[in-house]
Amino acid sequence: MKEFEVYQILEKYGIKTPKYEIFDIDKPLYFDSFPAVIKIASDKIIHKSDVGGVIIGVDSQDELENARNKITQNLQNHGIFLDMHDKFIVEEMVRGEEFYIGGIYDAIFEEVLLFGKGGTLLEVEKDICYIDTYADNDEIIRSFKTTKISKIFPQFRGKEYKIEYVIDTIQKFQNLFLSENIAEFDVNPLIYTEDGFIAVDARIKQGKKEKRENRHRSHELFDNNTIAIFGATDKEEKVGYAIAKNAHTSKAQIYFVNPHLDELFGKKVYKNIDELPPIDTAVIAIPAKYVVNLIEELAQRGVKNFIVISAGFKESGNVQDEERLSELAKKFDINIIGPNCLGIYNASKRLNLTFAKTDILPGDIALVSQSGAVLAALIDKATSHSIGFSHIISLGNMADFDFADAIEELNSKEECRFINIYAEGLKDGKSYLKAIRKSKKPIFIYKSGKTKEAKKAAFSHTGNISGSYEMLVGLSFAAGAVIKKDIDELIFASRFEQFKEVLIITNAGGPGTILTDIVVEQGKKMYELSDEEIKQLDMVLPPTWSHNNPVDIIGDATAKRYKAALDILYKPDILIFILATPQLMTDGLAIAKAIGKKANIVPVFFGEDSFQEAFEYFKHEKILYFNDLENVANIL
Amino acid sequence: MKEFEVYQILEKYGIKTPKYEIFDIDKPLYFDSFPAVIKIASDKIIHKSDVGGVIIGVDSQDELENARNKITQNLQNHGIFLDMHDKFIVEEMVRGEEFYIGGIYDAIFEEVLLFGKGGTLLEVEKDICYIDTYADNDEIIRSFKTTKISKIFPQFRGKEYKIEYVIDTIQKFQNLFLSENIAEFDVNPLIYTEDGFIAVDARIKQGKKEKRENRHRSHELFDNNTIAIFGATDKEEKVGYAIAKNAHTSKAQIYFVNPHLDELFGKKVYKNIDELPPIDTAVIAIPAKYVVNLIEELAQRGVKNFIVISAGFKESGNVQDEERLSELAKKFDINIIGPNCLGIYNASKRLNLTFAKTDILPGDIALVSQSGAVLAALIDKATSHSIGFSHIISLGNMADFDFADAIEELNSKEECRFINIYAEGLKDGKSYLKAIRKSKKPIFIYKSGKTKEAKKAAFSHTGNISGSYEMLVGLSFAAGAVIKKDIDELIFASRFEQFKEVLIITNAGGPGTILTDIVVEQGKKMYELSDEEIKQLDMVLPPTWSHNNPVDIIGDATAKRYKAALDILYKPDILIFILATPQLMTDGLAIAKAIGKKANIVPVFFGEDSFQEAFEYFKHEKILYFNDLENVANIL
Repeated sequence: MKEFEVYQILEKYGIKTPKYEIFDIDKPLYFDSFPAVIKIASDKIIHKSDVGGVIIGVDSQDELENARNKITQNLQNHGIFLDMHDKFIVEEMVRGEEFYIGGIYDAIFEEVLLFGKGGTLLEVEKDICYIDTYADNDEIIRSFKTTKISKIFPQFRGKEYKIEYVIDTIQKFQNLFLSENIAEFDVNPLIYTEDGFIAVDARIKQGKKEKRENRHRSHELFDNNTIAIFGATDKEEKVGYAIAKNAHTSKAQIYFVNPHLDELFGKKVYKNIDELPPIDTAVIAIPAKYVVNLIEELAQRGVKNFIVISAGFKESGNVQDEERLSELAKKFDINIIGPNCLGIYNASKRLNLTFAKTDILPGDIALVSQSGAVLAALIDKATSHSIGFSHIISLGNMADFDFADAIEELNSKEECRFINIYAEGLKDGKSYLKAIRKSKKPIFIYKSGKTKEAKKAAFSHTGNISGSYEMLVGLSFAAGAVIKKDIDELIFASRFEQFKEVLIITNAGGPGTILTDIVVEQGKKMYELSDEEIKQLDMVLPPTWSHNNPVDIIGDATAKRYKAALDILYKPDILIFILATPQLMTDGLAIAKAIGKKANIVPVFFGEDSFQEAFEYFKHEKILYFNDLENVANIL
Repeated sequence: MKEFEVYQILEKYGIKTPKYEIFDIDKPLYFDSFPAVIKIASDKIIHKSDVGGVIIGVDSQDELENARNKITQNLQNHGIFLDMHDKFIVEEMVRGEEFYIGGIYDAIFEEVLLFGKGGTLLEVEKDICYIDTYADNDEIIRSFKTTKISKIFPQFRGKEYKIEYVIDTIQKFQNLFLSENIAEFDVNPLIYTEDGFIAVDARIKQGKKEKRENRHRSHELFDNNTIAIFGATDKEEKVGYAIAKNAHTSKAQIYFVNPHLDELFGKKVYKNIDELPPIDTAVIAIPAKYVVNLIEELAQRGVKNFIVISAGFKESGNVQDEERLSELAKKFDINIIGPNCLGIYNASKRLNLTFAKTDILPGDIALVSQSGAVLAALIDKATSHSIGFSHIISLGNMADFDFADAIEELNSKEECRFINIYAEGLKDGKSYLKAIRKSKKPIFIYKSGKTKEAKKAAFSHTGNISGSYEMLVGLSFAAGAVIKKDIDELIFASRFEQFKEVLIITNAGGPGTILTDIVVEQGKKMYELSDEEIKQLDMVLPPTWSHNNPVDIIGDATAKRYKAALDILYKPDILIFILATPQLMTDGLAIAKAIGKKANIVPVFFGEDSFQEAFEYFKHEKILYFNDLENVANIL
């Protein structure tokens, strides 16, 4: 498409373009707005500037004719000869800061905009952000703020830059991209002027785009009152045993189904569906080849929720059965979790329908993961740090129920305060972003599959495409999620966000300094000690104590000294870290006991073997603790 | 200083400036190189462009007079009225990519250059690197490569960009900055042209600069054959006891000194110096007030090394005694470590002159830390992961011996392969950079004191200034050190750097994907399975195994299956990670035992409580292991 045709499309959506005239290659040029720019418009040329196809700063009619001859000459020097399909465009020269806007059609996120600093250095500087075509004003601004060029707004070196112009222009491009059959476009530069942005150089590639259908769910996944476990068994090495064991102490009604067994954990085992009382939820841990038929039969009887533990679907090449699962879900309006998953957990009903080995502590974080093994590892780590969960959803292959469904479902659950997600590949980017956007609960996401080698590995075990890491990170952040860089961070949540001020009591200055950096970088204030508090501390601490927060109570600090300092400084509305390093006199267990169990007191015992007894104590007392400094950032 | 005076200084050092003429404010302008630029030169104006004091693209003598009138008018509109001190400069208009070079005089690093992308967006884009005035060509390039603008070299969009011009220009500015009494300067833009860089707009602030003296050391810190511990005691709560206990099993000759004690650990205790046999090293753990005199007396008797454990110096306001220590060190040409430190350790002599609680394992990493408590915590963590050290130096307040000395000393030690540093504040930046530059061993640095609150905390406990984190990071990296972002990373070192390829055997796809990202991001290749290997694996693994590296041997993998896969795939020249997550059938201890102890097999057991027995086994067998994925990056 030639530039002036592009200009016409842009104008249709209210996007400004420079005043311009188009001239056939052999016609004289007449123009009346100087300074002007003359450019060649030819399908034979991609980067006009690189071949001398653009001359700027043309000041008069005479210069214009000279410039045309110069361009013709330049192109010939590059071996390009013009013909009757080519045109000259003469346009007014627009001056101002150079921006860029582009659009791409992505396999996961469909239409996505890129916006940021423009100019010839675009590819080098990459000062660009991703913006979804459904992003609202807040989201547009949040995304734009991640660029450096955004810092010239609202004012830079005496000149005003209006953020409204950014929003207005992006909205127009969102509209354009969603309405037209455009596969890709680029505007560079998009020039900021006092009257708004003007698209100066633009390129559009047309193409058809598929639209995904959005399915509405009528039933809640966690509406589980009567549950049957298909494949429950007394063989300890089987997942059906582990699930039955984890599930049978639940407050919900649990039935076991297995044609070859009479009793399990003191409960009757049903032989088949016909014997079974009515259920709302089926957990399925039987060989893959029987799964589809079982689900169909149960769905016909009104079962609404299916947790498919069984493996042997898309991840091992069995695409057909996996597609049947998707179809069944739509046909019967049911929820299917998995296949190839670890199960689900719901603290409020003490309902553990997973085959996780580790006991799951109740808590306020919902953990959602595509990988069952990552879940298992995170549960293991969480339990050992006294961290619990309100809900767990192992998504597995995501034949039906996906991230968007999980986020929506969890938003209706009071016990869930935070939603932590481990993602490998997404399917429907738009519904994922919509769910994040609507979520009233904070969402933390770790995404694997950054490198092509890992994308390949991820694909081979769930059959889902990983997509561009940068795009996912950018769009998720703009929609309102927080991206985590370390998988271990998913067991934490910013549960102390409401605390504005932090106090550190430490037996060492160095670690106190490091923790101060971490606290302040998370936007917290260091609590300022009052004169009265300093006076009181002077009476119980050695004279060399730091007289400042972090309160360094010196390397030979005993439990008693920690307690004395804490007694003076304790306040319910500040967050208090009790920092200990293994020094000569440090008795970790005694300190652990002395500081007591309070919600706003968090022990950070920086060490390992020397603190084993203390750690055991914290686990036993279910006290959240840290054995490193870095992870503390995750709870602030 | 007016711009043309600045031009004269630049020209003295061979730095190109545009052809220019200076005109008194009331004289006619004559110029013969068009297009030209006309600018005002006035002490009353800082940002000329912002007040209309610059007009570019002047094409003729007539336009030049018009432009002068326009500038005068513009300035009046901003309330600036010219007088006889002001001048007009007319210069040829230089076109090309805009760069920036600046110089600042820093309290720690003295003269430092900043170089990168120039133009009006400088402060917004901050695409700038730090370059030391003593950086050589390699260092200049390494630093420059951290900027985005460097990516246009050696060629961008058909235009050649010569890196030699960068080096040449920076060398000239290094020379200028070191030779002249300049406190600060700015050149923006410094324009890249086909003939090299041309400094177009320049500003210089003059000022005197102090020079630090550099002291030469004649003695090695680790030359310890006969050692006396002053303050050795049988009181278990005292550091003098812990040091004596750690030290007395050394291969070196250890003497204890304490006027109130006869015997300790079966050794005679000396009452005073006069009784004591000749020594080369003194460890001092007596009250601060006696330290200075003791050192002076011992130095007079020829003792060369002093490890001052005692606290109570600068960190608690006693600046005077700390300064005496510095003076004594210079006067007697002795090494003083500390004061206020944990001590030193030397694996080759089994010499532990620290009061660390944890046993230190021998190894190949030298750990250098300003904070004794950070050392203690890191030793504790290292030991629990079977990681050992060749040397440990606790620098404490650094009255004398500092980071540069430590790096130099450790470079002469064969047993030390890596130098890991925890730094709070530096004293002499130039000698620190010189030591990094000269080091033949890799250096890893963690620097605390990023935020102003943490700088304050650091200062209050060692009395040293933290300085700018960004500058330290930039300069250290350019000089050849690696900056670590997490304090725990200091117990690791890139000990598997020589391995180009990595194999992952895992019982789970998700964690395998995450580890693949980590491995590939560290520049390693994933080992490619041969057809023969795949055939053999097909015989021992379930059919759903991944058929790819990571070799996913499926969630129900037993120790036997791990061993079978490893037996087929083991090669001495690839690095092998045995990745396990706590799944239903996972027996961590059995897997730990099955995989054996080989230097290139590293267990990564991603979990916590479920793997306690395995971890105990690894510790007992002194096998390096991981219980998380993220830290694996540190050994690659």
